Amino acid sequence: MHEKFVEGFSKWTKARKIDWLARHYLSPAGAETLRSYWHRDPATQEIHDGFAENPVSNFYLPFSVAPNFLINDKVYAVPMVTEESSVVAAAAKAAKFWFPHGGFRSRVISKIKTGHIHLLYRNDPEKLKAFFEAVKHEYLRRLKPFTENMEKRGGGILSVELEDLTHLLPNYFTVSFRFDTADSMGANFINTILEEWADYMEEDYPAYGSPEDLEIVMRILSNYNPECRVKVTARAPVEKLKVGENPHRYARRLVTAMDMARVNVYRGVTHNKGIMNGVDAVVLATGNDFRAVEAGAHAYAARKGKYTALSSARLEGDSLVLEMELPLALGTVGGVTKTHPLAAAALEMLGNPSAGELMEIAAAVGLAQNFSAVHSLITEGIQKGHMKMHLNNILLQMQATPEERAALTEIFKDRKVHVKAVKDELNRLRKSKNHDNRTA
Amino acid sequence: MHEKFVEGFSKWTKARKIDWLARHYLSPAGAETLRSYWHRDPATQEIHDGFAENPVSNFYLPFSVAPNFLINDKVYAVPMVTEESSVVAAAAKAAKFWFPHGGFRSRVISKIKTGHIHLLYRNDPEKLKAFFEAVKHEYLRRLKPFTENMEKRGGGILSVELEDLTHLLPNYFTVSFRFDTADSMGANFINTILEEWADYMEEDYPAYGSPEDLEIVMRILSNYNPECRVKVTARAPVEKLKVGENPHRYARRLVTAMDMARVNVYRGVTHNKGIMNGVDAVVLATGNDFRAVEAGAHAYAARKGKYTALSSARLEGDSLVLEMELPLALGTVGGVTKTHPLAAAALEMLGNPSAGELMEIAAAVGLAQNFSAVHSLITEGIQKGHMKMHLNNILLQMQATPEERAALTEIFKDRKVHVKAVKDELNRLRKSKNHDNRTA
Repeated sequence: MHEKFVEGFSKWTKARKIDWLARHYLSPAGAETLRSYWHRDPATQEIHDGFAENPVSNFYLPFSVAPNFLINDKVYAVPMVTEESSVVAAAAKAAKFWFPHGGFRSRVISKIKTGHIHLLYRNDPEKLKAFFEAVKHEYLRRLKPFTENMEKRGGGILSVELEDLTHLLPNYFTVSFRFDTADSMGANFINTILEEWADYMEEDYPAYGSPEDLEIVMRILSNYNPECRVKVTARAPVEKLKVGENPHRYARRLVTAMDMARVNVYRGVTHNKGIMNGVDAVVLATGNDFRAVEAGAHAYAARKGKYTALSSARLEGDSLVLEMELPLALGTVGGVTKTHPLAAAALEMLGNPSAGELMEIAAAVGLAQNFSAVHSLITEGIQKGHMKMHLNNILLQMQATPEERAALTEIFKDRKVHVKAVKDELNRLRKSKNHDNRTA
Repeated sequence: MHEKFVEGFSKWTKARKIDWLARHYLSPAGAETLRSYWHRDPATQEIHDGFAENPVSNFYLPFSVAPNFLINDKVYAVPMVTEESSVVAAAAKAAKFWFPHGGFRSRVISKIKTGHIHLLYRNDPEKLKAFFEAVKHEYLRRLKPFTENMEKRGGGILSVELEDLTHLLPNYFTVSFRFDTADSMGANFINTILEEWADYMEEDYPAYGSPEDLEIVMRILSNYNPECRVKVTARAPVEKLKVGENPHRYARRLVTAMDMARVNVYRGVTHNKGIMNGVDAVVLATGNDFRAVEAGAHAYAARKGKYTALSSARLEGDSLVLEMELPLALGTVGGVTKTHPLAAAALEMLGNPSAGELMEIAAAVGLAQNFSAVHSLITEGIQKGHMKMHLNNILLQMQATPEERAALTEIFKDRKVHVKAVKDELNRLRKSKNHDNRTA
């Protein structure tokens, strides 16, 4: 085997893993960086080491706050976790903009999640259907030990049916479940139910036909949950919009911009990406799974055969109305929502919401973010807002001193920021300073 | 205004922000949690405070390592950042599985990115086309101060054309650009070019017609970059697959499972979510923007009018072949890639790759993750792998001592984990221990 091939890595301590990395892949400084990000309290670090396999350090993402979010008549300070500069500022700006107009109305349409047993059946479909109907109610009873806890919390199995998908793939059927998982994300609950049910089928089928007829291929929750959806709206009289001299022109431009995202996939994808900038920041902060949310949202955007914007804007009488429907399956119980100290703090900051309330908040932040992005685009453009952060990043990379950073920020207050210009100005500054030092 | 409405929040120090949160939204313990996650070195903390607005703390995500990744004949230890347990273990397992078969072949198809000026033109389209052709080359020259640095690094503007989209929306045109942004993500470069070009048009058009004809609505990069794509493959003789007694049956099941994801959106979304579990972990670790990657990938999955799986499997002669094409626009320069000390360490761990090499690595990890997930699904099911982490989370939440955790881990070695069963066992253990203490 190759000299860099390693066995038993997962069993080593963090320190030994880092030593090994330093032998093969990292400079001493890089290794020290990993160690320097361990939490100062070993017990806290141990909690974080339990969240994933082969941890060597903690990746930092800024834990930020966007205050002044008025959602369903309640004022929130929203925890947001994102590495992208200007996202939190944009959310906070949108929150403030919509506050005097009553903020955001956000409502869970349903929390129904799905899961499937995917199987091949190589005999008469009627025979499979008969088997399924014969055992269905018995299986629901047999599952009680797994469902009773969830039922107490208001969730459970809502429906289960056999679906014939042989028009898509030969012999392909699913046992298709719909669930309510109360305040939990429900992954473990759903997958356990599916695996149990599939086991029952494999055990019992031989009494109905040849074991060869039935091949269970997979049993797994789906991240496509188009029913599990939130609808969020913001509304304001056009006259009262604080957007400069011509609010009617502004409102028309906003509607046009949203329409462009509806019809043009190049714009629609980016438009929805802006929505997810907001949604994911809340999803991450509360310990939820952003890959699940992303997959569900974009697939929903493509549900009608053409990828389109998730949000829209319209003029309704004298008002500007923003609206969005977003599939969003979040939990406030299970996963790392309660065990990650910062996720727990984020949930506390939101008043320890139910899963539904959290979905309403995240969707509102998504629409706010979307509004802010489109607002910037149709007014001063996106770059002006980005420039301060861009400059900051360039200066960090050039290891500018705090003094130099202050000077350059002043210089670029009204100038366009590009790497070369910043480099030139910094070099000029440093030269003149050296000159000063020599002449002093 | 509402008592919780706040002005000037962004200008406060972290400490003051947290005090305010503690007054309105957080318990003293919650506030202390936020403070306790500050980096012990104030200078390092200051770097992180510069990455987003209104930071109050650092959100921890496990920074993990998946060793043994053989990609294009090079062995990598891949940095992965994810909150989802079992993702890193699955990646490491897949890396080890494919290592003896030559690992992964991964190849950038192109790195072409797109951006657009979205405009309304309320006059004869021919007139706009004439204007565009008249100024195009002059504008490319005028942009030199903005492009010369990028051109030195091998990038620049590849093409620019006017697109008539009036069939989608009245008066809708775009000026459509294609870029190569070398090793950078290129957002600032692209947006700056677009804003400059749009400014030139607005300045110059009045010499060609009424200023009222032309309304520039937006100028912005697109996250839909279907040309900017990586193709990754893994291949092995079926006979040599280490998958138990019947590798041919296994290979057939794997192909069937991948086919199911191709035809059934409920499975396809989840299948792709598994791919993104791997991709995003690398994207996050290297300081790239996962919302951009997610949006582009899922929209690409829906490009033919029906959402489908990004990867596929087939039998080719005696071999099992896995394959995936994934749009993926990553950078190793710009954004926080170099300024975030852990992103810098992650890039160092990968040998400071070019943007293209990083794209190849991330795509390979995505396919590895996908393989591992489908492998689990068609063999023992997903729950078994999750159970250890699930148990760990439940025990953390119940504040089990290390001693209790060891005991419960032993008890649930071969038992199904659900919250109630764990609670029952823990209570039994605690009772018997109290009993022991009393009788001791």
